Amino acid sequence: MTNFSEWFHDILEEAELIDSRYPIKGMHVWLPHGFQLRKEILNILKNILDREHEEVLFPLLIPESELAKEGMHIKGFEEEVYWITHGGLTELKQKLALRPTSETAMYPMFALWVRSHNDLPLKIYQTVNTFRYETKHTRPLIRIREITTFTEAHTVHSSRKEAEDQVDKAIEFYKEYFDLLALPYLITQRPVWDKFPGADYTMAFDTIMPDGKTLQIGTVHNLDQSFAQTFDISFENPAGEHELGYQTCYGISDRVIASVIGVHGDEAGLCLPPNVAPNQMVIVPIIFKKEGQEVLEKCRILKTSLQKQGFRIHLDDRDIRAGKKYYDWEMRGVPLRIEIGPRDLKNNSAVIARRDTGEKFKVDLDNITEKVTETLNSITSNLREKAWEKLNSSIKQVDSVEEAQKQIEESKGIISFAWCGREECGKDIEEKVRVDILGIQGKEKNGNCFHCGSNAKYRALLSKTY
Amino acid sequence: MTNFSEWFHDILEEAELIDSRYPIKGMHVWLPHGFQLRKEILNILKNILDREHEEVLFPLLIPESELAKEGMHIKGFEEEVYWITHGGLTELKQKLALRPTSETAMYPMFALWVRSHNDLPLKIYQTVNTFRYETKHTRPLIRIREITTFTEAHTVHSSRKEAEDQVDKAIEFYKEYFDLLALPYLITQRPVWDKFPGADYTMAFDTIMPDGKTLQIGTVHNLDQSFAQTFDISFENPAGEHELGYQTCYGISDRVIASVIGVHGDEAGLCLPPNVAPNQMVIVPIIFKKEGQEVLEKCRILKTSLQKQGFRIHLDDRDIRAGKKYYDWEMRGVPLRIEIGPRDLKNNSAVIARRDTGEKFKVDLDNITEKVTETLNSITSNLREKAWEKLNSSIKQVDSVEEAQKQIEESKGIISFAWCGREECGKDIEEKVRVDILGIQGKEKNGNCFHCGSNAKYRALLSKTY
Repeated sequence: MTNFSEWFHDILEEAELIDSRYPIKGMHVWLPHGFQLRKEILNILKNILDREHEEVLFPLLIPESELAKEGMHIKGFEEEVYWITHGGLTELKQKLALRPTSETAMYPMFALWVRSHNDLPLKIYQTVNTFRYETKHTRPLIRIREITTFTEAHTVHSSRKEAEDQVDKAIEFYKEYFDLLALPYLITQRPVWDKFPGADYTMAFDTIMPDGKTLQIGTVHNLDQSFAQTFDISFENPAGEHELGYQTCYGISDRVIASVIGVHGDEAGLCLPPNVAPNQMVIVPIIFKKEGQEVLEKCRILKTSLQKQGFRIHLDDRDIRAGKKYYDWEMRGVPLRIEIGPRDLKNNSAVIARRDTGEKFKVDLDNITEKVTETLNSITSNLREKAWEKLNSSIKQVDSVEEAQKQIEESKGIISFAWCGREECGKDIEEKVRVDILGIQGKEKNGNCFHCGSNAKYRALLSKTY
Repeated sequence: MTNFSEWFHDILEEAELIDSRYPIKGMHVWLPHGFQLRKEILNILKNILDREHEEVLFPLLIPESELAKEGMHIKGFEEEVYWITHGGLTELKQKLALRPTSETAMYPMFALWVRSHNDLPLKIYQTVNTFRYETKHTRPLIRIREITTFTEAHTVHSSRKEAEDQVDKAIEFYKEYFDLLALPYLITQRPVWDKFPGADYTMAFDTIMPDGKTLQIGTVHNLDQSFAQTFDISFENPAGEHELGYQTCYGISDRVIASVIGVHGDEAGLCLPPNVAPNQMVIVPIIFKKEGQEVLEKCRILKTSLQKQGFRIHLDDRDIRAGKKYYDWEMRGVPLRIEIGPRDLKNNSAVIARRDTGEKFKVDLDNITEKVTETLNSITSNLREKAWEKLNSSIKQVDSVEEAQKQIEESKGIISFAWCGREECGKDIEEKVRVDILGIQGKEKNGNCFHCGSNAKYRALLSKTY
């Protein structure tokens, strides 16, 4: 697509995902089709988290005194928090913040819940709306003022090692999640000046959008004992001593929905992975005057049968041209189209068309379940493979800041470079290249920092970001 | 129970449903067990609504200008709306309200969506958090400042008749819902001075709590054309003329969860209807040293087998006394307990204990599925029947205001009376009896108003309310 930004804006409207005409900037209405897509995408994440977290729900509002307790944290958020000052006609004694994230809502309660090492580990999560008063240009699902699907997990452990292990586990959960959505990702440790306010370190997942910019789609933070210190989350260890808890938190928001739309879409519209498509397939009866009723009847039977097997399926029996139906469902990204006409009726067959490749083929109705299962799996693999190829091919190793500058200006991609890891050097690189360092991808044993020339310690990434 | 208020407060804590120590009055944390109960209760409602509504999601915040558009509406809410005045350190140009309900968030968008009679009927719903700055004494799940499960449906129709029919349909949906929760209800039309601000008329569902006070658990409003007028929701009818839409809205909130807890609970704790119990049954192995492993193995097999059949089931294999386990699960309201011990192993049997009646009986493991299904159904019927009996027996017909006064003072019940229906007379009754008129239950053909003595038109109800 030539202009991703325009394409993205148009498809959100044409596929009836959201309505951005709501009279507050950066806040949008989820329309039925968008709501269903959102629900399917959320459900996959929740199913993964449910395996070892308990779901809870904390209040939206946070008293100013709690939000302000952790110095770094409030500094990171104070410019983008919405403040409630009045209840009805009365001025409140204390301002209340709309949660930008829930550490300061949860941790005072954790202090009450955690008493002994037997209470640990504590692992909970919630899916909530969060708010940021974004002053930059807003963009639906990507830079918004009300995030509607923030799914944040918070854990407390009895040792530093266990918290570190939880960070690794969380990374595995998110890999599994993005794999199911066929989304490719880069995992980096964010530079210290870009970590979560109050965290020890932040691991982040980024994907790449069709315009070459990377989009952060998930973060995992090791908080160590900093919040535990502030909120007095301590436990009695087996030796009978009081010790501060070790914490992690990790979250995913609406941007993952933007990625599913952006990464897989094409000129014809959405192209949804079967795992999250509100309709995984649509049946289009090919009706001529004669055998019309018989064809329709066959379609209905097939729909019911596939539905019973757990597929999400729609029968499009509208009285309009088949071509118009094809166009609609392709644009809405339905993975599979099943056509049945009078000739298929005689042959006990149907024609299947794939949204991802455009391929069409005939199948016997007797083994259509296996065929659609197989094809849906193949679509997921194909989408995943294509997306990973695109991501991998957009990474370019460069050996100097000048080259990086040139690459960033000219092309649309991700720069991989050897780096010393020093903050001073990193900030200097960012200033020269005028984009942010995504983070550290891994260790680098040989070679020199591509900027300052001292010993390189890390392999790091740079890119234009959302 | 002698003191319902205390019982309710204690059980919320003991059964780990919510934590009310959150540092803002009237806002609470849903703990894992409470969250699961909340989810099951919500899911039943959503399944019913999904049959003919599409789910959407609107922003939480409403610009002051929209909220203020409908005169009656803003008057009804202005004293209890939370206002955001600042984004970060910046004062906002326009104040933003946290939705107390979503008419004024939705209807400006409806005006964009509705063009022709072909766009109608429009039927949508959403489940959201809503806010009321309650100044009265707050009470968990009953009078709260953040409602977390407000499920509000909104419809637009092309004729007054169709909107009226939708009100009837909504009443049927809610009856089905409350029946599934085994909750008894009174359906009345609220007095005109107590209808939803801006509505033509309001139908309401109330249930009765153990202390004899009624609790509103659902409302259905016919908005007629008043909001359509204000927000310019008009459509082109088949004759090519522009006409204002006819609207309804109806909603249910956290109070239904309070009712499930309060109506069915007893001295031993929660007593949950099987449809919504997070665990529908618990297996307790009766372990003596010898056959311990065999018993446990049998329990595991049974758990897996019942789980596969779709039951929500927990195996309590904690190393504590069986009596303590019984106590815990009774208190948490699990409908069925299945005990398996060494003797049962030999007989291929198990013992089932009902939470509602305390009854215990032996079942053959070969047909345990039918037995538990049967017993769960019987529990639902029994809970429903008992609750209806209690409701019905607490309604007393009285013939004078003085008698009503006495009844209200002395007993804990609902007063049924013949009423003329005039606002002046109604307000006078409320003043004298010092409780609110719930509403009109039906027409009354003979007799005189129990207060003013003129011809009675209606049978109406009075009660202490939450």
